[in-house]
Amino acid sequence: MTAASPPRAAIITLTTDFGTADPYVAAMKGVLLSINPMIAIVDISHEVRPQRLPQALFLTQSAWPFFPDGAIHVVVVDPGVGTQRRALALQTPRGCFVGPDNGVLSSALPEEARPSDDAGPATVELPAGWWAVAITERRYLREPVSATFHGRDVFAPAAAHLSRGVPLEELGPPVEALLCLPPLRAQRRRDGTLAGRVLHIDRFGNAITDIRAEDLPPGRFAIEIAGRQVGGPVRAYAEATGPAALVGSGGYLEIALPSGSAAAELGIEVEAPVALRPAR
Amino acid sequence: MTAASPPRAAIITLTTDFGTADPYVAAMKGVLLSINPMIAIVDISHEVRPQRLPQALFLTQSAWPFFPDGAIHVVVVDPGVGTQRRALALQTPRGCFVGPDNGVLSSALPEEARPSDDAGPATVELPAGWWAVAITERRYLREPVSATFHGRDVFAPAAAHLSRGVPLEELGPPVEALLCLPPLRAQRRRDGTLAGRVLHIDRFGNAITDIRAEDLPPGRFAIEIAGRQVGGPVRAYAEATGPAALVGSGGYLEIALPSGSAAAELGIEVEAPVALRPAR
Amino acid sequence: MTAASPPRAAIITLTTDFGTADPYVAAMKGVLLSINPMIAIVDISHEVRPQRLPQALFLTQSAWPFFPDGAIHVVVVDPGVGTQRRALALQTPRGCFVGPDNGVLSSALPEEARPSDDAGPATVELPAGWWAVAITERRYLREPVSATFHGRDVFAPAAAHLSRGVPLEELGPPVEALLCLPPLRAQRRRDGTLAGRVLHIDRFGNAITDIRAEDLPPGRFAIEIAGRQVGGPVRAYAEATGPAALVGSGGYLEIALPSGSAAAELGIEVEAPVALRPAR
Repeated sequence: MTAASPPRAAIITLTTDFGTADPYVAAMKGVLLSINPMIAIVDISHEVRPQRLPQALFLTQSAWPFFPDGAIHVVVVDPGVGTQRRALALQTPRGCFVGPDNGVLSSALPEEARPSDDAGPATVELPAGWWAVAITERRYLREPVSATFHGRDVFAPAAAHLSRGVPLEELGPPVEALLCLPPLRAQRRRDGTLAGRVLHIDRFGNAITDIRAEDLPPGRFAIEIAGRQVGGPVRAYAEATGPAALVGSGGYLEIALPSGSAAAELGIEVEAPVALRPAR
Repeated sequence: MTAASPPRAAIITLTTDFGTADPYVAAMKGVLLSINPMIAIVDISHEVRPQRLPQALFLTQSAWPFFPDGAIHVVVVDPGVGTQRRALALQTPRGCFVGPDNGVLSSALPEEARPSDDAGPATVELPAGWWAVAITERRYLREPVSATFHGRDVFAPAAAHLSRGVPLEELGPPVEALLCLPPLRAQRRRDGTLAGRVLHIDRFGNAITDIRAEDLPPGRFAIEIAGRQVGGPVRAYAEATGPAALVGSGGYLEIALPSGSAAAELGIEVEAPVALRPAR
Repeated sequence: MTAASPPRAAIITLTTDFGTADPYVAAMKGVLLSINPMIAIVDISHEVRPQRLPQALFLTQSAWPFFPDGAIHVVVVDPGVGTQRRALALQTPRGCFVGPDNGVLSSALPEEARPSDDAGPATVELPAGWWAVAITERRYLREPVSATFHGRDVFAPAAAHLSRGVPLEELGPPVEALLCLPPLRAQRRRDGTLAGRVLHIDRFGNAITDIRAEDLPPGRFAIEIAGRQVGGPVRAYAEATGPAALVGSGGYLEIALPSGSAAAELGIEVEAPVALRPAR
C-alpha cells in the first residue's frame, strides 16, 4: 500500500493522555470529521498517565496490530508541544502513524530496529522501504497552530488529510531517523535470572510484566514479585488458586488473582521489579 | 430476520468489564473492523465491576432494547475464560447475542423463560423458534485462540462474521439450553411486603432497586432503605424535597436526592435491602 | 443550510452528565440509531459534573466549533427533567442544538446575544435569521415519554429525526427566546484588575480561567491565584519552570505546571478566584 491509495473505509485510531472528561479528544474528532467525514474513529485509550511515554507504548503495541492494514494511528502524548520537537507522519507496511517525535511512535517499529534496553531512548534509522516526514506544510494544518494543542492543530488534520489520499510526502520534508524507545522486554542476567518490571496494571488488578512468553525458560522456575513468590504459570485465570503468573493475551507474563486484584493484594505498582529464576 | 439477512448498516454493541483505559476493548474493535469495516460499534458500558454478572445483566437489559432489531450485542464478562464454559451465539427475534455461557446473556431471554429468583442461576431451554450455537468453528475465530482473552479471539470474530451474513449455524453445533440468571425482580412476602435490593447506583447517586413499577401496590405504602423511610414516590426528580423514591427510566423504583447523591447521603450500597410495605 | 437539507453524513454530538458506566448514553445511542442508522455519533463529554451547567457550557464551547457545519449537538444536563421547562431545538448558521431550555445551549449563541455576567441567567431573544422550536410533536418522540429521561425519549429522537431531514418547524411551535447563561469571561474592575475565576481543571491539573487572551493588557502584569503569584505567561507548557500562566488552546489563560498538576500543587478548585493586575 502506498500513501496514495487509502483504504476505502478509512480507520483512524486515537491514543492520548487527554482523558475523556475534557474537550480535547472531541475537538480532535471534530477536526478529523471536518476534513474527512467518511472515517471511522476508534479510541484506543485516552487514559495514558499524563506524559508517561512507556505506558503509551505498551497500550499502542497491545492494540494497533489488531487493526486492518492501512489504518492510521494517531498517538498524542506530547509534553514538548510547542517546542522544537518534530511532528511526524510515518508510513509502514501495516499502516500510518502520526505523532510527536519523542518516542511515542516506537511501537510502529520492528523490535530489531529499536535501541537496546540499556541504551534508553535513542535516534534510530527507519527500516528500508519505510517513509517518514516532518509535518510542516501549513495548508494541511489548522491555522493558527497553537503552541499548546498539536493534537487538534497538527496531528488530527495531518491524519485526516492522509485518510483522504494526500500523499505522505506532501506533508513536509522527509525524515531519515526518529527518536525511539527500547522494546519492553526483560533482561537476562548472567546468573540466568530474567529481571523485569511491571509495565501496566489493568482494571482487574493484573500486573503485566515485560517478561515475554518466548523468554520463559524451558524447565521449572520461580517467580518473585514484591518480595513474594507467586504460583504458576497457569494457563487460564480460573486455574489459579492464589496469586499466580500466567501468559496474558499480549504475550507477556502477568501476575493475576482470580476474583481479586493481584496488584492490590500484593502491593504491586507500575515499574515494580519482577524476577524469574531457574528453580534450584 | 434470519441470520443470513444481516441489516444493511450492521450495529455491534459491546458490554464488558474491561474499562476503557486498558487496550482490551480497542483490540476487540480492531478485530471487528478487520473482519467487517462497515460496522457501527457502540459501547454500552465497559465499567461492569470485574466479573459481576448481575450488573452486566442490569446494564445490558437497560440498553439493548433501544437498539434496532438485528443489532448484534456482544457481552464479555468472563471469569471462566479458558475453561470448559461454552462460547455462545444466540439468535433472537430482536437481535443476536454473543458471549460466554455463564448467564451474562440472560437479558436476551424473556422473563418467563428465566429461572425464578429463588432458584438462582439455572440452565433453561431456549424459547421455540430461537437458535443458539456453541462457537467452535476455528475458521471464524482468531488463531491461536488464547486462554485469557476470548473477547478478542472468539466473541469479536464471531460477531463480525455474523454481521457479514455468516449464518449462525456455521459457527458451531446447536445448543438447546443455556445458563440463565433470574430476572431482577423483588419478591413479595406473605405479609404483603415487597422485599428487594439495590441493583445499581448510578453517577447521580440514584439507588436503583429491583422493585418494578408494575409491582407497586395500588394504595399507600412506605418505602424503607438503609434503616430509613424515604418519601415519594414522586413523578420527577425535581419534585422531591429530600431523599425520595420515583419510578426511573428503566421501570424500576429508585431512591433519588435532587441536587445530591441519595446513595452517599443515606449510605446505600449495591445489594442493600429495600422494603416496600403497605401503609398501616 | 436549512433544516430541510441535512449533511450527507450526519454527525450528532453528545454532551451529558450521565457518565459512561451507566446505561443512559447507550440507550440514547440506541434510539438515535433506531431512527437513523446512517449517523456518526461523537461523544463530546459525559463527565459534566451532575447538573453543573457552567461546566457543560465550557465543554461544549470548547468542542462544537471544531465540528463541520450542519452537525447536530445534543446537550443533556437536565435537573428539571419532567417539569415545565421546555425542550428546545435550535437551528443556527453553524449547526443544530438540541437540549433543555435551562441555559445549557448558551454556547450556541454569539456572545453579543447573551446576558452580561452581572445579570446571571436571563431570557434572551434569538438572533435574526435563527430558528428555534419547543419540541412537542409526539410523533417525533419516544412513547411514552418518561418524566425522568428526556435524553432518551425527547432529545435523541428529535435529533435523529432532524438528521433525517425532518424540518425543524415540524417538531413543535416556534420559540422566540431562550434561557441563556452569560459568556464565561472575567470582569474588568475600575482599578484595572481583571477579576476572574477558574472554569475547569483538566486531566493534567491545568486550571483554566475565564480570562481571555484578547483581554490581556498590553504591558506587564501580575497573575494571582490561590493567594500566590505565578509566573508567565509563557508560550508553551515546556517553557515553564514552575507554576505559570499561559494562553491555552481555547483562548483562555490557564495555570499550568510542567510534569505536574498546578491545581494539586497550588490547591486550586473550580470557581477559585484569579486576578490579573497591572504590574506596579
